[in-house]
Order: sequence, then C-alpha cells, then structure tokens
Amino acid sequence: MIFRDPEDTIVALASGEAVSALSLIRISGKNAFSIADALFSKNISGASSHRAYFGDFIIDDKVLDECMLFVFKGPQSFTGEDTVEITCHGSSYIRREMITAILGKGARMAEPGEFSMRAFKNGKMDLSETEAITDLIHSETKQQHAMAMHQMKGGFKKELSGLRQQLIDFASLIELELDFSGEDVEFANREDFFQLLKTLDSKVVGLINSFQQGNVIKNGVFSVIAGRPNAGKSTLLNALLNEERAIVSSIPGTTRDVIEDTLSIGGVKFRLFDTAGIREAQDQVERMGIEKTYASIAKGALLIYVFDQQETGLDKVLADLEKIKFDPGRTLMVANKADVGEMEFDREEVLFISAKEKQGIEDLKAAMLAKSQVGDVNNDALLVSNLRHLKALEDTKESLNEVFLGFERGISSDLVAIDIRRALFHLGEITGEVSSDDLLGNIFANFCIGK
Amino acid sequence: MIFRDPEDTIVALASGEAVSALSLIRISGKNAFSIADALFSKNISGASSHRAYFGDFIIDDKVLDECMLFVFKGPQSFTGEDTVEITCHGSSYIRREMITAILGKGARMAEPGEFSMRAFKNGKMDLSETEAITDLIHSETKQQHAMAMHQMKGGFKKELSGLRQQLIDFASLIELELDFSGEDVEFANREDFFQLLKTLDSKVVGLINSFQQGNVIKNGVFSVIAGRPNAGKSTLLNALLNEERAIVSSIPGTTRDVIEDTLSIGGVKFRLFDTAGIREAQDQVERMGIEKTYASIAKGALLIYVFDQQETGLDKVLADLEKIKFDPGRTLMVANKADVGEMEFDREEVLFISAKEKQGIEDLKAAMLAKSQVGDVNNDALLVSNLRHLKALEDTKESLNEVFLGFERGISSDLVAIDIRRALFHLGEITGEVSSDDLLGNIFANFCIGK
Repeated sequence: MIFRDPEDTIVALASGEAVSALSLIRISGKNAFSIADALFSKNISGASSHRAYFGDFIIDDKVLDECMLFVFKGPQSFTGEDTVEITCHGSSYIRREMITAILGKGARMAEPGEFSMRAFKNGKMDLSETEAITDLIHSETKQQHAMAMHQMKGGFKKELSGLRQQLIDFASLIELELDFSGEDVEFANREDFFQLLKTLDSKVVGLINSFQQGNVIKNGVFSVIAGRPNAGKSTLLNALLNEERAIVSSIPGTTRDVIEDTLSIGGVKFRLFDTAGIREAQDQVERMGIEKTYASIAKGALLIYVFDQQETGLDKVLADLEKIKFDPGRTLMVANKADVGEMEFDREEVLFISAKEKQGIEDLKAAMLAKSQVGDVNNDALLVSNLRHLKALEDTKESLNEVFLGFERGISSDLVAIDIRRALFHLGEITGEVSSDDLLGNIFANFCIGK
Repeated sequence: MIFRDPEDTIVALASGEAVSALSLIRISGKNAFSIADALFSKNISGASSHRAYFGDFIIDDKVLDECMLFVFKGPQSFTGEDTVEITCHGSSYIRREMITAILGKGARMAEPGEFSMRAFKNGKMDLSETEAITDLIHSETKQQHAMAMHQMKGGFKKELSGLRQQLIDFASLIELELDFSGEDVEFANREDFFQLLKTLDSKVVGLINSFQQGNVIKNGVFSVIAGRPNAGKSTLLNALLNEERAIVSSIPGTTRDVIEDTLSIGGVKFRLFDTAGIREAQDQVERMGIEKTYASIAKGALLIYVFDQQETGLDKVLADLEKIKFDPGRTLMVANKADVGEMEFDREEVLFISAKEKQGIEDLKAAMLAKSQVGDVNNDALLVSNLRHLKALEDTKESLNEVFLGFERGISSDLVAIDIRRALFHLGEITGEVSSDDLLGNIFANFCIGK
C-alpha cells in the first residue's frame, strides 16, 4: 500500500465504534481549520492552539450536535499538522453525519495509521517509536504494555543512536582516507574504531537475543494442551480459563477462529491451543501468510501434556512425548483425575491435578509461568518484539561480521567502508532514518483507523 | 436508585469499550484537579480552563501513557464542576490501569448518567434537556436525531416556561385574594386568567397528541408481517432487509432477542416482527415490565399482510384480516409471487410483489412509509416521545380540567388554587423544577456510563 496524497486533509473516528457517551473525531491537514470554520458555530482559523471551544456542529443550518472542538496548530500537534479534535456525542447517527459533512468539505477518510505516518514524516517521532503506538494500543498485559511503552519512549534511539552516530563519523573518516589513498594517512583511530564495533556488536546481539522474550510477551506464550482422548484436555482448558473468561471476552480481536483461548498469568499472556487448535491455527497461518511469526512462536511453545493417571502409565506418557519431540525444558507433565486418587510416578516433575474438581490449577499456572521463562520486564530494558526490527538487527549483525572479517583479513579500506555503510543502512531502518514509501505503507497498514 | 454522595469526585470511560486509536476518560468533582496533579506530569490545579496539556500519566514512577489532558474549571464545564478529560491511547490495559489509579486517588466510578445528573443539579440544563442527551446518543435515524436535538435545545422550555411563569403569577394573585377573603377583592383578572388557561390547555393537548408520532419515531414503527404458512413472510423479510443488514448490524443494542429486525425507510425506523415475533416480544414485555410502552406501539402498529395470490383468494384474505381485527388504515395487503403472474383483485390498494425476485419491494417500502404517517420532523416542532413527559402532560391536562370545572361551577378560589398548584407541579415535573432523588435516580439509570 502506498499512501495517498500527503497534502490531503484527512479525517477519521479515533474512538471506538460502539454507542457511548462521547466519541472523538480527528481532522488533520492544511484545511483542518477552514473545514471546521465551515461546519462549527465558532471561528477556528482565528482560534488559539491547545484551546477547547464549545459550540454547535451545523449542517445545512441544522444543528447536528453540540460538541467540543480542540484546536492544535501545526507543528504543535500529534501529526505536526493543523489538527482539530471533535468530542461529539457517541451516537452512530451523529458520527456518520459528522464525518460525511467533513468529507463534503474536502477532507478524505484517513487510511489506517495515516495520522501516525504523518507524525513520523513530520519528524514528531522516529519509526520505531511510531510502531510502538500500535503495540501500546493492543497491549493487554502489564508486560506487553511495559515493552511497548519503553519503545515508544525512544528505546531504540537511546540504545543505538549514539553508537550509530559514532559509526557514521568513523565511516566518514575512513572514506576520507580513501581520498588520500596514495599517502599513508590514517584519520580513523583503528583501535577506537574496533572498540566501537565491539560495543555495537554486543548491543546488537543483546537485542537480537531479547527477541525470544519480546516476542513471547507480545504474542503470548504459545501453549499446547495435548494428550490422549479422554485425558481431560477440554476440562483442563475450562478450568484454566475459569475466572478469566470475562477478561478474555472483553478484548476484541481475540477471535476464536485463530486462537483457542487467552489467559493472563502474572501479567503474562498465554495462548492456549488444544491439539486440534494447532492444526487449525496452522491453516490460518498459511492463509494469512504469517508462517514466520507462527514458526517463531511454535519454536518456543509450551507443551502441557495431560494424562489420566488411572489409565496411562509413565511409560506410555514418555512414549507419547518422545513422539511429539517436544523440548523437555518446556514440557509440563500433568497427571489428571487426582480426585480419584494420586498414583506414584518415578518423576518428581509430574504435577497432580483434578481438572474436574479444579484442584492443583493454581500450581499448574505457577509452573506454566516458570516454564515460560518470560521473567519480569523492567522499564529500563529494551526488548525486540517486532520481526522487522529483528530482521534489521540480524542484517546489521551480518554486516558487522563482514567488517570484522575485513579487518582480520586486512581487506582494503574501501571495501570495509561498504560494509560499514551497509550496517548503518540496516541500523537506520529501525528508527526510520532509512525508509521507503513501500515499507511505510506496510508498517502503517496494520494500525487502527484514526491513529 | 438513589445517587451516591454528590460531593464525590467521579470517573468513567466516556468513549466506547473497543480497542481503538484513542479513548476518553472523564473525571468530575472537587478533587478532579488534585487527582490529575497526583498522576500527571504537569500541574493541573494551576492550569487555565479550556486548555489542553500534553504529558505523561504516571503510576508508581512508571509512565502508563502519553496523553492529552483537557482542563475545564467549574462552572464552565459540562457538569458545572471542575472536570478533567483525558485522551489516552485506546488500549484496554491502559484504560483499566488509568481508571484504577484514579480510583486509588479517591475518585469513585460514576453511576450511569451521573455526569448528566450533576449538569442538571448544577443548573447547566433542565431535566427534559438532559433526558434528550440519551435519546440523542441512541438516535439512529434522521428523525430520531431531529426530535432529540430539538428537545436538547430546550424545546419544552420554549413551549412551556413562559406560560408556566404566567400561571405561577396568577396562582400567587389568587392566593393573595384568599388573605383578603372577607373583602371582595379580585387581584387576578379572571378573563385574562381564563385566556391563559385556554392557551396552556391547547399547548398541552397539542403536546399530548404529538406523542403518537414522537413515540413511533423514537421506538420505530412496529410493523408486523403476517400471513398464512408459505405466503412468503420470511422471504419478504429478507427482501426488505436486503441492503440494510449492514446498517442494522452496526447498531449495538438491536438484539435479535427482542426485535426481529430493524430497517430504515426515508429516515424512519421500522421494526419488523413476524407473527411469532409478536408473541415473543410480548413475553419480553411482561418480563421487562414495559407493557405500557409496547401497548402504545402495538396500538399504532402497521400490518403487512402477505398472501400467495395463486393460492389465496380475496375472500380468504379479507376473512383473515377480519379475524386479526387490524385497523384498515394501517394495513397493507401484499399479493406475493407476482413473478408467476399477477391475478386481478377487486381492491386497488393491493400491492403486487415478488419477494423471491425482489420485485415491487421499493413500492412496498414507500407504502409502508406513507401508512406509518410519521411525516417529516422539522426542527421547529416539539414532539413528545418520553412516557414520563406524556404522563406529566396528562396529569397537567387533568388538573387544568379541574380548574375549568371549578370556574364553571363557581367553586371557591381556595379550591381552584389547589388545582392550579397541581397543574404547576405536573408542568414542573417535565423540566425538573419539581423533582425528587427517586425520580432522578430512575431517569439517569438509563443513561450510558460516562454521560
């Protein structure tokens, strides 16, 4: 998707669709004020920035609504452009008529993410900060929120921009040396440069390594409930979800088509699939073209293997697990139907529960949290959770490797300079110093309308 | 419901629940500013009214969100109290944490309608104006909107408050006469007074008569599709709803439990029931204790009688209609299956359609609109659509009748004065000059949370 004319004035509903007390409609662009003048009972073009004006929204001499208009003059606005935010009554009729009237005065409907895209293009935020907004909006747990907030507050900039600037300076010096290639000059101190490369490399590796944790926090701990027929998989699913259903159902977007169910344990999101669920999800995946995301999730998935301890002996359990080829470090062996009586197993890690009687469920949850290895996110650590960022970091790492290799092998400065420039390019992709309209289109297409 | 302490500072989500770009949280009451000070990165107590402040919402030294705070100093606010409106990101997590933090600083959750109740109590709006807000929010059609807007803009005040004041003056004069009862004084000019009573009476009768139209606009034209088995009732229902389903489904609250389906024709809402639907709805009615509303609707219901013109002769049609005892002025005779061939009927009002082939559907819609007799609502006519208002007007009318009767029969002034006071009481109920906490509790309980 390529964005349409950035000179257009755009409009969108920024708050939810439901009938509610109030709704928020946002207009941004060079005609935002003149459009408001044409439809509002007070003059907005002459108004002060960051002020609220109460009046009538009027269409064809009839009052559509009494509302509050907030005026933000560019560049002192979210988008950096002249912006009007209208708080109107939360009626579907009023919203529809109001947006229609605004379109009638020459605005057009904003594409998803177009307000944020303009904020980025106008230098209000860097690309990774802007991307964090949509993660922030979709955050459901404390951990997701902390991770998105850290990124929105310039996490990447803080981690990388100083080092990137030093690398730029070194690259320039090395390129300058090339101009004096006949003479044996060395503007760039090789030892300092090598030190910088090592610092940068270790940062980049750290960030790459944070992806496993970041991804799990963002997308949830992919948890598979498996077991033989009648082991009690569905009963366990229900027992786990027992007190959580209300929270789950209040989160739009967690449709039962893709995910079996979602559960929050200690601020961490768990996505529970039953064995059929896995197959189903993988069909979805193929359809949606996000194999890679799901592959990453599946790689780190937690296996909750349930068995009927009266029926299934440990040998059969171990044989089953062997067949599934799951990582033992991420597998929970759950002996169900403990209400009938607990058998003895020669494995101390076996958890005894009764899904039916809801016994041992809290212990199971604690074990799931421990096995997930998510740990606590503090606001000071940047975690990578975005595949685009991971890709850019991996590309940076690869270019840095080439630079190191070049030094080792004594390759000529002009070739090393190319690899440095490549590393800089990939670093710049993260925060958007380097970007294309295509790339931006892809990024912002996943945003909410109105953001 | 009795409202809790009006001195409390209250908080609520004012925009919709869905995940969206932005959400709006409203705090009102004497601690609104100090609560904002405790949680926001900028000082709000010292801020100017009607100004927007951008900053961080902070809980335990961690940034929950970057948001915009709008400051409204009482009485220059919707409620008349100090008010802070927060535009935050539309994340369920952020909303929950933000409201929890505000509660932690001493606010409490607002009851439904409590902001509006405070606006009324603080003299920002009269009672009928405040009630119109909730009608406005729930308006789905042009007509519903126009009616609610007229009332919100002080329709009742304009119609009645002048006359009510004159009546108060007269009542005072007549009561003054009573103090001089030994002497034959007459402070109140009887002819002028009689003229005022007649004017008031005709206004009140006009408003009472507007209820049929107002109620139909507000609640929709109750339309029943009836006919023999296989006449094509369901096919007709589908044909009528064909292009409207999308609109219907986007309106929350129109659940299929109560209403079969909703359709907008020419800005008028029609509620389509099939014959089973009527029975079902009447069960609902008993359960919900709103017999009276539905009785009024049913009284004015439209009957769409469908028959298979190849199978059912006019004599059978007329016999059926006779049995149903519907008002002929509100009955449409619809000869279905016209695609097979049109029969001749000795009734020119018969409409020929093919529900299956969607022929004649537009003509049927036009006929439904004509039969509904809703007509066009203009912004200058006040229509009564609220049962509470209707009841108060009927009580006023009854008291006025007593006053007239008293005059006719030469009843003593002290007794007439009582009836005048009673008329004034009932008139005052509409705009809230007369109200009780019980009454207000009932009215505002039907509001949205956050309004």
